[in-house]
Amino acid sequence: MSKKNQAQVVIDGKLLIVSGYESEEYIQRVSYYLNTKLAEFKKLDGYRRQSEDRKNILMQLNIADDYFKAKKQVEILEDHVAARDKEIFDLKHELMDMQRKLDELQKK
Amino acid sequence: MSKKNQAQVVIDGKLLIVSGYESEEYIQRVSYYLNTKLAEFKKLDGYRRQSEDRKNILMQLNIADDYFKAKKQVEILEDHVAARDKEIFDLKHELMDMQRKLDELQKK
Repeated sequence: MSKKNQAQVVIDGKLLIVSGYESEEYIQRVSYYLNTKLAEFKKLDGYRRQSEDRKNILMQLNIADDYFKAKKQVEILEDHVAARDKEIFDLKHELMDMQRKLDELQKK
Repeated sequence: MSKKNQAQVVIDGKLLIVSGYESEEYIQRVSYYLNTKLAEFKKLDGYRRQSEDRKNILMQLNIADDYFKAKKQVEILEDHVAARDKEIFDLKHELMDMQRKLDELQKK
């Protein structure tokens, strides 16, 4: 994506124009996620009681927590892929060995 | 993790006490990520010129973008794991077939 896109989004009731290389659809999806999270937070007394500054930091920490959890999942899945690649490699070797034995037996 | 932990963190120069079920080390790592991102943003004229409100939303969008990118990677890796599981299943079947042929030949 080399073309810069612009998207009008409403986040926390504020209209803004976001420009970037992402598609408008993507920017809208990210905005929807933020608004949903904000709506959940606003239901909590403990959040509403905070100063604006602290509310902002709590939101940032919460989104970053989602990010770190997803990153952790990426690491786990990368390990799974590596373990399976090793298993595939071993199985292919086993198959080659067996094929060799089979060929020898068939020659006899 | 069932015990609630408390951590003192400094985000954007503000000291706060965060409590949650995550370890203090984790909360510090997330805070470090936020402070690094904020420091990067503050170097940009385009960011400094914005109102506080807009700065906050830009930070939120940016963190959420990291999250969505990681989530996308999770989806891709899940597909990779599924494809490899299928390959392993097929290879194991091939091995079983070959073993059967080998057994038959050896009996003769």
